[in-house]
Amino acid sequence: MARLRVALLGAGRLGAAHARTLAGLTEARLVSIADPRPEGRRLAESLDAKPVADPLEAIGDADVDAVVIVTPTATHADLIEEAARAGKAIFCEKPIALDVPTTERALATVERAGVPLQIGFQRRYDTGFAEAQRRVQAGEIGKVHLLRSVSHDPYPPSREYILGCGGQFVDMTIHDLDIARFVTGLEVESVSAFGSALGAQAQDFRDAGDWDTTVLNLRFRGGAIGSIVNSRQSGYGYDIHTDLLGDNGGLKVGYERYTPITRYSRAGATHDYVPYFPERFAQAYAAELVAFIHAVQEGRPVTPTGQDGLASLKIALAATESARRGGTPVGVE
Amino acid sequence: MARLRVALLGAGRLGAAHARTLAGLTEARLVSIADPRPEGRRLAESLDAKPVADPLEAIGDADVDAVVIVTPTATHADLIEEAARAGKAIFCEKPIALDVPTTERALATVERAGVPLQIGFQRRYDTGFAEAQRRVQAGEIGKVHLLRSVSHDPYPPSREYILGCGGQFVDMTIHDLDIARFVTGLEVESVSAFGSALGAQAQDFRDAGDWDTTVLNLRFRGGAIGSIVNSRQSGYGYDIHTDLLGDNGGLKVGYERYTPITRYSRAGATHDYVPYFPERFAQAYAAELVAFIHAVQEGRPVTPTGQDGLASLKIALAATESARRGGTPVGVE
Amino acid sequence: MARLRVALLGAGRLGAAHARTLAGLTEARLVSIADPRPEGRRLAESLDAKPVADPLEAIGDADVDAVVIVTPTATHADLIEEAARAGKAIFCEKPIALDVPTTERALATVERAGVPLQIGFQRRYDTGFAEAQRRVQAGEIGKVHLLRSVSHDPYPPSREYILGCGGQFVDMTIHDLDIARFVTGLEVESVSAFGSALGAQAQDFRDAGDWDTTVLNLRFRGGAIGSIVNSRQSGYGYDIHTDLLGDNGGLKVGYERYTPITRYSRAGATHDYVPYFPERFAQAYAAELVAFIHAVQEGRPVTPTGQDGLASLKIALAATESARRGGTPVGVE
Amino acid sequence: MARLRVALLGAGRLGAAHARTLAGLTEARLVSIADPRPEGRRLAESLDAKPVADPLEAIGDADVDAVVIVTPTATHADLIEEAARAGKAIFCEKPIALDVPTTERALATVERAGVPLQIGFQRRYDTGFAEAQRRVQAGEIGKVHLLRSVSHDPYPPSREYILGCGGQFVDMTIHDLDIARFVTGLEVESVSAFGSALGAQAQDFRDAGDWDTTVLNLRFRGGAIGSIVNSRQSGYGYDIHTDLLGDNGGLKVGYERYTPITRYSRAGATHDYVPYFPERFAQAYAAELVAFIHAVQEGRPVTPTGQDGLASLKIALAATESARRGGTPVGVE
Repeated sequence: MARLRVALLGAGRLGAAHARTLAGLTEARLVSIADPRPEGRRLAESLDAKPVADPLEAIGDADVDAVVIVTPTATHADLIEEAARAGKAIFCEKPIALDVPTTERALATVERAGVPLQIGFQRRYDTGFAEAQRRVQAGEIGKVHLLRSVSHDPYPPSREYILGCGGQFVDMTIHDLDIARFVTGLEVESVSAFGSALGAQAQDFRDAGDWDTTVLNLRFRGGAIGSIVNSRQSGYGYDIHTDLLGDNGGLKVGYERYTPITRYSRAGATHDYVPYFPERFAQAYAAELVAFIHAVQEGRPVTPTGQDGLASLKIALAATESARRGGTPVGVE
Repeated sequence: MARLRVALLGAGRLGAAHARTLAGLTEARLVSIADPRPEGRRLAESLDAKPVADPLEAIGDADVDAVVIVTPTATHADLIEEAARAGKAIFCEKPIALDVPTTERALATVERAGVPLQIGFQRRYDTGFAEAQRRVQAGEIGKVHLLRSVSHDPYPPSREYILGCGGQFVDMTIHDLDIARFVTGLEVESVSAFGSALGAQAQDFRDAGDWDTTVLNLRFRGGAIGSIVNSRQSGYGYDIHTDLLGDNGGLKVGYERYTPITRYSRAGATHDYVPYFPERFAQAYAAELVAFIHAVQEGRPVTPTGQDGLASLKIALAATESARRGGTPVGVE
Repeated sequence: MARLRVALLGAGRLGAAHARTLAGLTEARLVSIADPRPEGRRLAESLDAKPVADPLEAIGDADVDAVVIVTPTATHADLIEEAARAGKAIFCEKPIALDVPTTERALATVERAGVPLQIGFQRRYDTGFAEAQRRVQAGEIGKVHLLRSVSHDPYPPSREYILGCGGQFVDMTIHDLDIARFVTGLEVESVSAFGSALGAQAQDFRDAGDWDTTVLNLRFRGGAIGSIVNSRQSGYGYDIHTDLLGDNGGLKVGYERYTPITRYSRAGATHDYVPYFPERFAQAYAAELVAFIHAVQEGRPVTPTGQDGLASLKIALAATESARRGGTPVGVE
Repeated sequence: MARLRVALLGAGRLGAAHARTLAGLTEARLVSIADPRPEGRRLAESLDAKPVADPLEAIGDADVDAVVIVTPTATHADLIEEAARAGKAIFCEKPIALDVPTTERALATVERAGVPLQIGFQRRYDTGFAEAQRRVQAGEIGKVHLLRSVSHDPYPPSREYILGCGGQFVDMTIHDLDIARFVTGLEVESVSAFGSALGAQAQDFRDAGDWDTTVLNLRFRGGAIGSIVNSRQSGYGYDIHTDLLGDNGGLKVGYERYTPITRYSRAGATHDYVPYFPERFAQAYAAELVAFIHAVQEGRPVTPTGQDGLASLKIALAATESARRGGTPVGVE
C-alpha cells in the first residue's frame, strides 16, 4: 500500500512530537511542515520534510493526502474547512473551536466534502482506556452505574494560556468527558459543577472568569451518574485515572508511577510520578496517528469524529454555565 | 486510676464487637449488657457481665459510670437524654437522630447535664485518617483546595434497612462528611447532588425515595471544594479512600488489600479486598472506645462531639434535598 | 470452659506485649508475672497479676496451668524442663537453645512429662503466612518448585545482642526457615551460604564471627530449591516477604506499607514502611497465644512444636557452618 | 550528520523488532536485511531495505557502515570477526559465544580491527536499570551491601531451544549478571548455585544437563554479596526485578503490571502482568540501538562492550559448574 503523504500544520511541542512520529512510520511520508517560525524550519529539515511558512500552501499541495492540524485552537476551524474543501483527510487536535456555531459550521463543511475528520482525543488510544472500553462493551462489568474520573495537571499553565484556552471545562475536562462517553457508551443528560481558584495563579483564573479546581457531577441518559474532578495544579505530577462501577464490580484505568524505580529510605518507599501528558500518553499520541493513517488508507471510518468533539464541547459548555451559576444543574441538548 | 464502669446498650453486630473490646480493656470494666434478646444474655455471660433486659435499668445502675449506646437509631436520642439525666458519660453510635429537631433536643439535654457525649464516627480514630488530620493541620500540604472522598459498600443492605436508615446521605455519606470536616478543618457552605438507583435492589431504594449511588459536590467556606462519591454495591469489597490536594501536593488515606497475600496466575496478579467495615475499621472501633474511656477518666473533652454529629447531619440533609430536586444547589445553615 | 491460668516469665519488650494480650483475653487469666526487675513488678500491678521475682515460684504455683516463657534465651531450656516436670503446658519463645544437645535434652524432658510445648514462631499465625500455607496445602499452586524469602531488619541490634544471640542464621533466618518448612511442607536436605559484614556495626558482627547480611540457598528433599536473603540493616524499615512458585503460578506473602497514608509531592508518591516486628506481627503475637490457650483447653496438639524448633535450628546451624566455610554446601541431618 | 547505514543480519523475532526500530530512526538508514528465509525478504521489502540471502554479502557492502547481528548464537563469533575485518561498527546480540576461547578470539579480532562492538544487554538501557545505576554511582544509597535479582520467564522454551542455548546460567542468568556488574560497579569473585528441574519440561532440561529453576549466591570483590533467582516458568508472566541495599537504604527496579487496568470483582483486585520480554523491554531494545548509532556517529565508546559480555559469561560458566557440583563454591577468574 502506498505511503500516505502527510502535511503537518503547527510545529509547537505537540506538533513536533507528531512530526517525529510521522517521520518514523513506514506507512506514511511526512511531506511538509507548515510553521512560519524558525523552529518549524529546523524541525522540517531534521526530518527531511519540506518547510512551509503558510499552512494554506501545505493544504494546497497536490502531493499531500492528509493534514495533521496542531496549530493554535483559534485557527482549527478555518484550516479544517480549507483542508476539507481541498479534499484532504484531516486529523485535528481538540478542540475544533471554543463555541458550538463555529464547530458546527466546520463539521458541515467536512460533511459536504466527504472527507474523514479525526479529533485528537488521544486517550481513546491509550492501552488502558481502549482496553476498558472493550471490556465494558463486552459486558464484563454489566450495566454501568457510576463513573469517577480524575485529571490533575502538575502545575498551572501561563496567564496567557489561561486567558485564551476557553476555560477549564472546555480545555481540560473535555478529555474526561470524551472518555466518559467513549468508555460507558452513554450520553450525558445534565451536569452540575462547582469551581474554585485558590492556587498559585488564582488571580489569572479569576481574571479569565475561570477556576483552577472543579468538581462536576454528570447524569447520563438511562440513569447512571458520574463525577469528574479536575485540578490545574496537583503539585506532584500528572494524575489521570478513571473508575467505573457496574452490576458486576468495577474497572480502573490509571497508574501512578513513571519509571520502574522505588527508593527505600527512612522516609519510606518513594516512587516517582508521571510528570505530564507527553510522558503519560506518548504511546497514545503515536497510536492515534497510526490509526488515522490506517483508517484513511483502508477507507474505514476514523474515530473519534468531529461529532464526538462537538458532543463533548456541549457538555463542557453546560458545565461552565453551571459553575458560573453556583452549581445550578444545566441540561445538555 | 479506677476502672471506668461501663454499661453497653444493644448487643447487635457492632454492639458485640464493642462489648468484646470493653471486656479486654484493663482501663474499663464491662458491668452490664442491656439487650432483651437471647444473644444479649449469651454475650453478657460469655464476658462476665450482667445481662439486663431493659436499657433504662443499666442506665439507672449506680455502679455504672458510662454508657455505650449501640441500639437501633430510633432509640438513640431518648437513651442519650436518659443517660444524661442520670449523669452518665455517653458514647453513642451515629446518628443521634435522623432529623435536626430531635438531635438538637438531645444535645440540649446533654449540655444541661454537663456530661460528655462522644459520637461513633470511628473513622477519626483510624490510623490513616487521624494521621492525615495531623499532617493537614500541621501544614504539610498547605491550604486545602480540594477533597475527594469515596465510600463504596460491597453489597446493598436489606430492604428493611433501606426503608429505615434515613437515606444514603444520612446513613452512609455522613461518615465522609465527618471526615471532610475533620481532616480539612473547614465547614461546608453548600452542596449539590445527583443520585441514581440501578443496582440489585433498585426498587427498594426507589420505594424509600432513596438511591444506591450518589455523587455530591461540596463548597467549603473559604473557597475550597470537594466531591464525595458513594455506592451501596461495589460488587468487590469495601472501598474507602479520601484524597486531599493543597498548595503543596496532596495526601491520600486508603488502602485496598486485606491480607498480605498476592496470587500470581495466568489471570494476572490478584490480591483480596477489605470485605467490609468491621475488617477495615477494627482498629478504629477499638481506639474510639479507648479514647472515650481515657477522656472521661481524665476529665478531658471527648471527640467527636454531639455538635459534630449535628453538623454532618445538616449537610447530609441538604444533600438529600439537592438530589431530590435534581441537583439544585442547597445551602447549609 | 474455665479460664486457663497463666504465668508469664520475663517482662521484657515482647514479654510485656504478651502480658497485655493475656490480660485482655476472656479465655485466660494472667495469674502472675515473674521478673526480678522493677518493670516486672510495675507491669504485674498494672495488669492485676501477682508480681513474682523467681520464675521457679511461678512455675511451682498450683494455681497455674500454663507458663509463657519470654526470658533470655540462655534460660529457656532449663525453664522448659522445670515447667515440664511441674506438669504445666508450655509456650516458649524461640529458640529453645542455641545448640542441638541442649534442645534435644529439653525436648526429651517435655516428652516424658507429656505436656504441650509450643514454640513462638509467630509468623505461622500471621494471616498472610497462615493463608499461604492453607492455599499451598490445598494445591492452589500445585507442586512447589521454588521459595524465595526475604527478611530485613531496619537497623542492627546492640553489640551485646550480637555477641549473645547465636548468630544471624540461628537468631534471624530461623524465622524464614520455619516458614519455609511450614508453607511448603518440605524438609531441607542441604544448604549453602555466603555472609558479609559491611554495615554500621560490621566490627561487632566480625567480633562475633557473624555477618549482618547473608544469602542462603536451600535444597529441599524432593528437588525443590529456595533462597533466603537476610539483612540486619535495611535502612528503611522491616521488610518481610516470601514468594512461592509452583506448577501453577505463585503466591506472595508480604506487604510494604504501615499506615494507609500516601503523600504526593514533587519528590513523588511516598508511603511509610512497617517499622519493625512488633508492628508487623502484632496480630500474630496475639493469635499464637490465643491458639496455644485454645489448644491446651481443648486438649488438641499445639503448633509449632519443639520438634519444629529443633528442625529449624539444625538448618540454621548448617547454614552457619556453610558460610564459615566459604559457601561449601552442608547437608542437614 | 549523515545517517548511519546499517545492515541487519537475522530476521527472527528480535531481528524483526530491531529492523522496525532502525527503519523508524531518522539517524540511521536500514540498507539491507540478511536472512535466507522468505520472512527475511518480506521484512526487507516492507521496510524499503535490500533483501540479502548471505550475511557476508551485507557485511561486504561498501555502502554499509555498521552491522546489527541477530542471527543464531552459533554464528555470532564468526560474523563479528568478518565484520571487524571489514571495518564495520558492530552491534551483536548476547552472547558472543557459549565458551570463553571462542569469545576471546572474537574480541581479539575486534581489538585488532579497532571497531566498536556493543553487546545486546538491553537491560542497561531500560529506564529503570539505567536510573538505578546513575543513582548508585551518585552515592544515593552509599556503599552497596546486597543485590537481589529475580528473573522469571512466563513459560519454558522449546526442547530444541533448551538443548542449544548453553544452559540457564549462560542464556538467562547472564542478564542478571550483567545488571549486577553494571548497577553495583562491582566484580564477582565467587559463586555457589543450586539448580532443579521440576517443571513442565523437566525431562528436556535434564537431557540438557540443565535446570528450569536456579538459585545463585554471589560474592563480590570488596565483600558485598548477592542472590540471583531464576525460573523458566513462573506460570503468570515475565517477572524481572532487582533490589539493592546499601549504607543508606535501598533501591528497587521492577514493576509488575502491563496495562494500566485493574479489575475489581468478588475475586479481589486483579491487574495483568507483563507477558514477556518484548513487552517489558520494548523501550530498552530501541534505546540500545539509538545509543549504538549515536556513539558510532560521534566516535564515542559503545557500552556494554565485548569485555562486558566476556565477564558475565565467565560468571555464568562458574555458576553452571557450581550447580553441577552440588553447590560447591567456584571462583571467578
